[in-house]
Amino acid sequence: MSDCIFCKIVEGSIPSTKVFENDHVLAFRDIVPAAPVHILVIPKRHIPTMNDVAPEDAALLAEVLLTAQKIAKEEGIAESGYRLINNCNSDGGQTAYHLHFHLLGGRPLGALLEGHSS
Amino acid sequence: MSDCIFCKIVEGSIPSTKVFENDHVLAFRDIVPAAPVHILVIPKRHIPTMNDVAPEDAALLAEVLLTAQKIAKEEGIAESGYRLINNCNSDGGQTAYHLHFHLLGGRPLGALLEGHSS
Repeated sequence: MSDCIFCKIVEGSIPSTKVFENDHVLAFRDIVPAAPVHILVIPKRHIPTMNDVAPEDAALLAEVLLTAQKIAKEEGIAESGYRLINNCNSDGGQTAYHLHFHLLGGRPLGALLEGHSS
Repeated sequence: MSDCIFCKIVEGSIPSTKVFENDHVLAFRDIVPAAPVHILVIPKRHIPTMNDVAPEDAALLAEVLLTAQKIAKEEGIAESGYRLINNCNSDGGQTAYHLHFHLLGGRPLGALLEGHSS
């Protein structure tokens, strides 16, 4: 059995507020939102980090990103704008070691990095 | 002729410090780096924003991301960690309207968004 919290969300043994699901991809709201819209988009299959995405996972990786794009439209933030973020390993600030992209929007999101001017 | 600054970088009429190039993808260093490693990875073809990526661009989108992954390894930040960011439209903070992913690393990158605690 996996100890991965996102695998448990995929399995349903940990609840989540799902916004999209198909056979390959799941999207759910972050429980500690950093913006009015803050959704995590993940592959259902356990891939720990961006480093672990293999060339043969290309279609899955694109599906995760295109799902985020589609959700942005559905959430009404496609035109106002949004940010997609993947954190990899410690310096990136990765906390859950199951590949995920943050979809953030609903307000001006500010600097690219904390403390940076643009 | 395009007025897009990134198309001019692709064409070579604006100089850049390239770190990778093939027929589809170009990567070059940001001229105002926000971290010790700050590289922009772009499709050579002009796609204005993430909203404009079509389903048939899936392979290209994945190639952009997998190129960033490969560069992270070459730059020596794969294990320490990095962050991939795409800004879309105004709220996202997009400034150049040619699809690009920021690859950032070389130091702990801090909060997901400015002013957020994690």
